[in-house]
Amino acid sequence: MPTIAFAPSGKSADVPSGTRLSDACRQAGFTLPTPCGGNGTCGKCRVHVVSGDVPADAKQRACLSPSQLADGWRASCMADVAGDLTLADPDAERPEVVLTDIGGRGAEGLGGGLWSVDVVLAKPTKEDQQNDLDRLRHGLADAGMDRADALLFDTLVLAALPGVLRQNGFAVRVTGLGDRVLAVTGREAAGRRLGLAVDLGTTTMAAALCNLDTGEVLAVTSRANPQSLHGDDVISRMDYAIKGTGELEEMRLLALDAIRALADDAKREGYADEAILLVAVGGNTVMNHLLLGVDPGALAVSPFIPCYRAVPPVPASSLGWSGQSPLMLIVPNIAAYVGGDITAGIAAHDVADLPGVTLFLDVGTNGEIVLAANGRVYACAAAAGPAFEGARISQGMRAQPGAIHWLDVADDRLVVKVIGDAVPAKGICGTGLLDAVAALLRTGIIDESGRMLDTDEAEELGLSADLAERLHEGEDGMAYWLERPTGHGDAGVALTQRDVHEFQLAKGAVAAGVKVLLGVAGVAAGEVDRVFLAGGFGSYLRPESAVIVGLLPEGIPAARVEAVGNASLAGTRLYLLSVTERERADALLGRVEYVELSGRDDFQHAFAEEMLFPSG
Amino acid sequence: MPTIAFAPSGKSADVPSGTRLSDACRQAGFTLPTPCGGNGTCGKCRVHVVSGDVPADAKQRACLSPSQLADGWRASCMADVAGDLTLADPDAERPEVVLTDIGGRGAEGLGGGLWSVDVVLAKPTKEDQQNDLDRLRHGLADAGMDRADALLFDTLVLAALPGVLRQNGFAVRVTGLGDRVLAVTGREAAGRRLGLAVDLGTTTMAAALCNLDTGEVLAVTSRANPQSLHGDDVISRMDYAIKGTGELEEMRLLALDAIRALADDAKREGYADEAILLVAVGGNTVMNHLLLGVDPGALAVSPFIPCYRAVPPVPASSLGWSGQSPLMLIVPNIAAYVGGDITAGIAAHDVADLPGVTLFLDVGTNGEIVLAANGRVYACAAAAGPAFEGARISQGMRAQPGAIHWLDVADDRLVVKVIGDAVPAKGICGTGLLDAVAALLRTGIIDESGRMLDTDEAEELGLSADLAERLHEGEDGMAYWLERPTGHGDAGVALTQRDVHEFQLAKGAVAAGVKVLLGVAGVAAGEVDRVFLAGGFGSYLRPESAVIVGLLPEGIPAARVEAVGNASLAGTRLYLLSVTERERADALLGRVEYVELSGRDDFQHAFAEEMLFPSG
Repeated sequence: MPTIAFAPSGKSADVPSGTRLSDACRQAGFTLPTPCGGNGTCGKCRVHVVSGDVPADAKQRACLSPSQLADGWRASCMADVAGDLTLADPDAERPEVVLTDIGGRGAEGLGGGLWSVDVVLAKPTKEDQQNDLDRLRHGLADAGMDRADALLFDTLVLAALPGVLRQNGFAVRVTGLGDRVLAVTGREAAGRRLGLAVDLGTTTMAAALCNLDTGEVLAVTSRANPQSLHGDDVISRMDYAIKGTGELEEMRLLALDAIRALADDAKREGYADEAILLVAVGGNTVMNHLLLGVDPGALAVSPFIPCYRAVPPVPASSLGWSGQSPLMLIVPNIAAYVGGDITAGIAAHDVADLPGVTLFLDVGTNGEIVLAANGRVYACAAAAGPAFEGARISQGMRAQPGAIHWLDVADDRLVVKVIGDAVPAKGICGTGLLDAVAALLRTGIIDESGRMLDTDEAEELGLSADLAERLHEGEDGMAYWLERPTGHGDAGVALTQRDVHEFQLAKGAVAAGVKVLLGVAGVAAGEVDRVFLAGGFGSYLRPESAVIVGLLPEGIPAARVEAVGNASLAGTRLYLLSVTERERADALLGRVEYVELSGRDDFQHAFAEEMLFPSG
Repeated sequence: MPTIAFAPSGKSADVPSGTRLSDACRQAGFTLPTPCGGNGTCGKCRVHVVSGDVPADAKQRACLSPSQLADGWRASCMADVAGDLTLADPDAERPEVVLTDIGGRGAEGLGGGLWSVDVVLAKPTKEDQQNDLDRLRHGLADAGMDRADALLFDTLVLAALPGVLRQNGFAVRVTGLGDRVLAVTGREAAGRRLGLAVDLGTTTMAAALCNLDTGEVLAVTSRANPQSLHGDDVISRMDYAIKGTGELEEMRLLALDAIRALADDAKREGYADEAILLVAVGGNTVMNHLLLGVDPGALAVSPFIPCYRAVPPVPASSLGWSGQSPLMLIVPNIAAYVGGDITAGIAAHDVADLPGVTLFLDVGTNGEIVLAANGRVYACAAAAGPAFEGARISQGMRAQPGAIHWLDVADDRLVVKVIGDAVPAKGICGTGLLDAVAALLRTGIIDESGRMLDTDEAEELGLSADLAERLHEGEDGMAYWLERPTGHGDAGVALTQRDVHEFQLAKGAVAAGVKVLLGVAGVAAGEVDRVFLAGGFGSYLRPESAVIVGLLPEGIPAARVEAVGNASLAGTRLYLLSVTERERADALLGRVEYVELSGRDDFQHAFAEEMLFPSG
């Protein structure tokens, strides 16, 4: 059996011949990024072969450049193990910079809608052998509860009931939501009533452990969405999930287990003994379909139909959550590509009810856009592609240590900031990309069509040496050094002509979506009173850059743009905390008018226009 | 690592030193009977050591006789592996004779209470992007269904909905029970509506696959209850389950998986494509508590309190049943030791409603007794112990091939019948034991106190040589050959003085229970119009023998005794088939008066009397 060894760590894995090299790496403990879902289109899973042979065949040549191949890099998802290999340790998984900052307003109403009733029951005797369940129901009825005989006990609650009653001398507290009983505990030991709000993001999941009665956030945790193994965007995830029931089930369990892990992480901070009674989940439509194991096939193709917008609370036990089993509240979806995360986000920031005109943007792989104007609310989704998340950009990466995340021109020099102040920089993330394109536009290195000048043309711009000499002929057309190689073996970080074109596709889609909504609402850009930018990219981007590149329509001053942080998590927390908030968010389903962009002539037209940069 | 080898099969297992020998046997593929749950009290898991050393220590001496130990037998549950061993192949697991004969009356009402509605929905378009769930709810409402918006969709039904709608061109059949939707299928492909009735017995499980609309039984299957690994009786099972949450969960999964296996077995006979929509489960209270994972602790100790008598239908998905997920209907329990199996049994035979006086007996490890007289219905449970199931009898065994199951004296000779006509006989099962005791009583070999005569006393009886010479001095007091050793290495089958005493305990408990109920009801034995004997032991026993030994009270002629087969399965099938039957069985909970025997003076008194045999 061939051995795949890693240096300098000394880790290794023995795998049968024919094993996919990426699987062998995973077996040895290295999980490589596979934004394209292992389809050999992104090259991000590349490994550096130190010794042994991995042929540079056609599949490899399709993923990697000739110089990468010559340097010994291979795409691990496209190679099969044929013999012993030694590879350089891939970069360890780095924690992403995650937006766990919860903005949004205070909750109206608290307590999660839960009821709790204390009862003291007569202890059974040989003369009174009534069973535990009927004894408890009668106690609840005696305490004034209506329809105690119709209460539904979660199987896990029933399972523990005999022990709980006896350990507490038949004096217990019963807690439920509607007609479901969620917990029976001792009255002293009942502790706080906890809930978990989960932002189920495609890339990153974040969770807030909350005291349901005070609204206090007790702990915030985050994890990468482990479904990323099967692609970075919702399309790759769906492609994988619809392969078969095994794959769909795998995706479901990956999401469920990650939510459980988030709960465990949060509770590790000192709330171990208290049960989480409710879990609210705000995720895009694809994510929450996969979480429930729902076939996403119809979401992926026109006319893009979700299986559901709203579902009643789901007992986690019915999903296979064992041990404590909370009730799961899924924040309802507006449409196939405007999901519960957006419902939550606009609820958290009262987008539908603010006076004047409000634009809400959550830009990631998809740009979800909500416009509230004149008492009506419109929403659409624009397929931005993954450029803003660092994918399909030659040196793009997620917002992790080592990524250039900020860039500007000052005193005729390019200034970059790297996450974690890492030296040398390893790549560029979405906000860095936006700044870089804005800087090149301002200096004139790229023109309004997105074309990068050649060195002769650039000379005529009269730029400083620092700015001018970064422009160079790359392997695949013109490129611009954001950070030059240090001479210590690193490759430097460059932005290529192709990267600029990728950026144009992404920003063009979002800007066109905004334009269509403004048109549908009959509102001019200048009339927009405020722009809320949600999500990681939106919260960390510099509004000036967004205006320069035309991501936001001309006429909106940068000062009207406000980053609102993780609006999805903020709104999901509200959804968790009270019935009033739930009703308010649920009511948005009847208020938001969804505008399907695909096939609209005005969208196609706007997209073509917005691919260009402002002539300004 | 020591090797445990088996001869002549050649099977083996390599196990770490210190492994329990019974676990090593299991690993090699031999599952030994452990009626006592591996507590070293029954010796039934003994293995014959051919080579290698297993010390005959105190634990072994507590389980096995000196001659067994000298012959090389060891109790595998009490031995740890210390080095290589060769063992004789244990007898392969033999199929038990299982009572799958379903008696009982025809069902009143059919269809399982299910509703099915056909709907034809408009196909979604870009102009009509309504989600699948709301589209279906509206279709159901248009078809006249009330409260379609409140229907609860099982997660698995929801998960499959997008595919089902599209594969069937949005023309589907929706099937549910009450407010739960259990299936959405194509209208052509919907097929029969199937249900499974399960007799969840402590020893054996049996299931009937039924067409819910015709009541037809399509297939009957049975399996040993895999929980037997942890003891043969409900007490051992509870002892194991209350050790910790892991053990309880193990018991739950053993039961659940066995029900699924029964369903698969039944469907293998040609119903693979049709979904089982309902599963009705009739089991004793301990069995159905363990199936739901409910802590049985309070059932095991006075005052013997069940967690519940009745529970609402349980979606199998909430128990972790994946794939098809039927709704489970648990036949309600009357008391801690009069479970849903008895509710089902008396419902199937209309015990509560027949004119006159009816006695219903289900004798196994527990004797459950129901007496209907003068418009009232009484029930009690007598702890018979496992003698009727062949346990705690020196050569007792279950009703499997090789067991003496019938015995009589004819022409001054003892005549025995062996299951499967096996030669030589291997042991004796419950009905054989009953016949043997009856025969020895009739010949005078045992007296009314249960004492076996010595050979001198027996001579005075003037018996034939065949009958007299079977009496002999055994290792542990007097014994009686039911079948002598053939001289080909078998041990013969003998009934010992101790066996007779074990039998007396069992029959005394049941007879005393009957006496107490007759007393409570104010009815004389002679007034009993009919006796229904349910279950394997009851159905195969000879009523004459039962009367001779006093298992049934004096005054009831054998002709009034009727074997009713697997009454639990019959009644569970009715419970499955219609709402009327369910209501009728559920109503028994309010009609049956439970009589707790433990601590009753009249029971203690009757037990002491009924331990003796009738003087007649």
